[in-house]
Amino acid sequence: MKLREQVENCKLLQKKISAYEYAMNVIYYDSATVAPAESSEDRGIIMGILTEEMYHIFVNDEVEKMLIFLLDHTSELDEQTVKEVEQLKEAYDRQAAIPVKEEVAYKELINQAENVWQRAKRDNDYESFAPVLQKVFDANKKRASYMKPDEKEYDVLLDLFEKDMTQEKLDQYFEELKKPLVELVQKVQNSDVEIRDDFLYRKYPVEQQREFSAYLMEVMGIDTERCIIGESEHPFTTGFNRDDVRMTTHYDEENVADSMYSVIHEGGHALYELNIGKGLKYTCLAKGTSMGIHESQSRFFENIIGRSENFIQFIFPKMQEIFEEQLQDVTAHEFYLAVNKSQPSLIRTEADELTYSLHIMVRYEIEKLMIAGEVKAEELPELWNKLYQEYLGVEVPDDARGVLQDTHWSGGSIGYFPSYSLGSAYGAQILHYMKKELDVDGLVAAGNLKVIQDWLAERIYKYGSMLTPEEIIENCCSESFQPDYYIKYLEEKYSKIYELI
Amino acid sequence: MKLREQVENCKLLQKKISAYEYAMNVIYYDSATVAPAESSEDRGIIMGILTEEMYHIFVNDEVEKMLIFLLDHTSELDEQTVKEVEQLKEAYDRQAAIPVKEEVAYKELINQAENVWQRAKRDNDYESFAPVLQKVFDANKKRASYMKPDEKEYDVLLDLFEKDMTQEKLDQYFEELKKPLVELVQKVQNSDVEIRDDFLYRKYPVEQQREFSAYLMEVMGIDTERCIIGESEHPFTTGFNRDDVRMTTHYDEENVADSMYSVIHEGGHALYELNIGKGLKYTCLAKGTSMGIHESQSRFFENIIGRSENFIQFIFPKMQEIFEEQLQDVTAHEFYLAVNKSQPSLIRTEADELTYSLHIMVRYEIEKLMIAGEVKAEELPELWNKLYQEYLGVEVPDDARGVLQDTHWSGGSIGYFPSYSLGSAYGAQILHYMKKELDVDGLVAAGNLKVIQDWLAERIYKYGSMLTPEEIIENCCSESFQPDYYIKYLEEKYSKIYELI
Repeated sequence: MKLREQVENCKLLQKKISAYEYAMNVIYYDSATVAPAESSEDRGIIMGILTEEMYHIFVNDEVEKMLIFLLDHTSELDEQTVKEVEQLKEAYDRQAAIPVKEEVAYKELINQAENVWQRAKRDNDYESFAPVLQKVFDANKKRASYMKPDEKEYDVLLDLFEKDMTQEKLDQYFEELKKPLVELVQKVQNSDVEIRDDFLYRKYPVEQQREFSAYLMEVMGIDTERCIIGESEHPFTTGFNRDDVRMTTHYDEENVADSMYSVIHEGGHALYELNIGKGLKYTCLAKGTSMGIHESQSRFFENIIGRSENFIQFIFPKMQEIFEEQLQDVTAHEFYLAVNKSQPSLIRTEADELTYSLHIMVRYEIEKLMIAGEVKAEELPELWNKLYQEYLGVEVPDDARGVLQDTHWSGGSIGYFPSYSLGSAYGAQILHYMKKELDVDGLVAAGNLKVIQDWLAERIYKYGSMLTPEEIIENCCSESFQPDYYIKYLEEKYSKIYELI
Repeated sequence: MKLREQVENCKLLQKKISAYEYAMNVIYYDSATVAPAESSEDRGIIMGILTEEMYHIFVNDEVEKMLIFLLDHTSELDEQTVKEVEQLKEAYDRQAAIPVKEEVAYKELINQAENVWQRAKRDNDYESFAPVLQKVFDANKKRASYMKPDEKEYDVLLDLFEKDMTQEKLDQYFEELKKPLVELVQKVQNSDVEIRDDFLYRKYPVEQQREFSAYLMEVMGIDTERCIIGESEHPFTTGFNRDDVRMTTHYDEENVADSMYSVIHEGGHALYELNIGKGLKYTCLAKGTSMGIHESQSRFFENIIGRSENFIQFIFPKMQEIFEEQLQDVTAHEFYLAVNKSQPSLIRTEADELTYSLHIMVRYEIEKLMIAGEVKAEELPELWNKLYQEYLGVEVPDDARGVLQDTHWSGGSIGYFPSYSLGSAYGAQILHYMKKELDVDGLVAAGNLKVIQDWLAERIYKYGSMLTPEEIIENCCSESFQPDYYIKYLEEKYSKIYELI
């Protein structure tokens, strides 16, 4: 009796939290897509109130007692409920560990840091940002030590984005990746192959691009009864729940590939959220298990599928229909080469598939050193520029296009960057195992992505957060995470494109 | 000390309630404009949870004690806080009067009634709707008796939409209106004047209409940094707060006047919300004071301004620029006549300015009799058709275009309809007094609506719910509400258009 009652309380608590999260997600989506310019101040106040309400519903003695009671009775609970209770308890401990005063102060710091960063980036003025950035790193280090006093701070932070990920594992991963990747990038640079991509930058009117987005969603098999695409400054995806997923894109009239690959990337995120098991709805498990696994899906569709020759060959007739004038003198093969043209560059979000992980490595090295206290915020521009020279061979002309380019650190997301690279590497390993069971090339050539989606849904999506990232990889690949599939994938793809011997 | 603390609690309570209302308004706006089709079931669940959360924040002993304490100390409070406390107490008593069980049962009934109504309207099957409609009326009667056991039930319901409005006052109002209005409609029907309006129904592409909407908002002086326009099945306006107001319209490619007058109508609502006093933000006073006063603003802009010859003359050059092909053979005067063409019809929402109040009278008579128990739901089609014959001289061919046409009753809004007619009548009286101070015709002819807007803001908008509808009318007109201005306004306008002697 008591147990059943507490289980019911636990389910109700999750349902309530889902309602607050839903409300805040809708408010966020609205703000990024349509809200009028002057509405932001009030939105901040409202979000603050709702966050506090949700906090009090979750962090209180009654909930703590309930979770402890349920953890004592896991043998009497079904598997899903056990996972819910475990993850709630973990989240509870993280929340409760931080003194309320420090939590409030941290929120204010982040708010300030985001404002200072925006101005600093605009004015190319790193000096004004350095002190507050140092505070953000210090605060995160302290928060990590509150959450798990016995663990290394950076590990605690990494775990927030990628469950069970550690600095040790990442050091090994990036170490394995670095040498072959840097070598491959150099070979590509030295290749005589010249790729034409002028046609990507012709005039592509928004209306035509919207039609193209709808087509891409159709090809990807995204259920538009449950998922819509809006427009925002920076593309993103947010799943309110499995039956209401929102993607966005941003149209650049002078760059057709920009929105195209945003749509396919966000579409990968959307497919994940749309296929989370129905039974997980209104529980804390009803979301993708980690940033890395989420990125594995978005980057799988964006790069592995979306930048493959088979995919381009399949969609190109429709592209030529929609963009009749712009693409009449272009072949599918030329288009395929253009969207795979590799060139070490300054800006992460504009990087090609090959050089992308090198951008991540720069950030990883810096985060690690900052949390370890081995470098100070004021020294970052020098370090950043040195690493860009070393890894990518490029000269950073100013901090706006250097250390100031990303929003993550000012938003307090430290330990987030590695997820992007892990996502690519997970994806390559998943592809390898998918190919043992499916004729991936043939399916893509036929535009039959549904079979691929079903394969992923069965092994990844439906589990939501029931499985850890490691368990997901085991589930797909019958082995643990191995980065060499990623290296091989890149070597094969770029050797072919750049005719390397 | 105790007082200051309780005042702070009271302000905080209102801020919290504002946050929940904001969240639910955003969710509603999102659902009506962009949300994917299959998201509605979960939205219902989420809204239920948030409504319940808000209910518990408001209805509890602590809040009741606080309100009673503050009501005992009104002499020590500023005027605004007194109004807040009084209105909160009134809302509290209304909420607390209804047993929780009955509240839940009522919500379920409404949910059911809305579904049954939708199907019944689609299938022209009133019989299936009658039993649940009877229940909705019965439940509202009972709710009214809970709220104010000593008052007439219909008066209690009217008061929810129009503070201090009573059946006695409305009987008098409609009695005064009926005879001259029916006579005027008959004269117009007998007039030999034939008005051409074929050009309203040419092909008007959505993109052009969107441009036209933006122009209309500009002419009306709507601040687009604080107000946006979206698209939904049925046009509406919702003010999240004075700095974030959302209008919608619906584009019919074969009817240019449809969206045009929706935009101007909703624009009137928006101007009200956008100009509510800053000091009222996050209090229960930060909204229009009643449905009738709100409609007085929307209908003032839609009909009195928007359907005036001066206004049409001012905007017509721009219309001919946007709709170059469609309007090249039309003069401003012809357009003015077309949007004022009067013809008794079946559907309220499509009715012209002259016959509109007759549609309201039918509904008012029926509501009154239903709440008095003098007629049963099963008898309504017969009664409806008889009244349409009597007031409008039209034959109702089926219930879908008769008693089933409106959503209000199935949604539990009983006592709402009179607001529409009151709004028109308020507007005409306000116009009369505005003309004593402003050269309204000259301002409209010059497209200078800002001066008119400022006049209204100063006398109506800025007060939010600080003043009652009656006080607002006194504030504008230095006298109480008088319906004869409305009759005179219609007589003058339509005598001219239809050349009556």
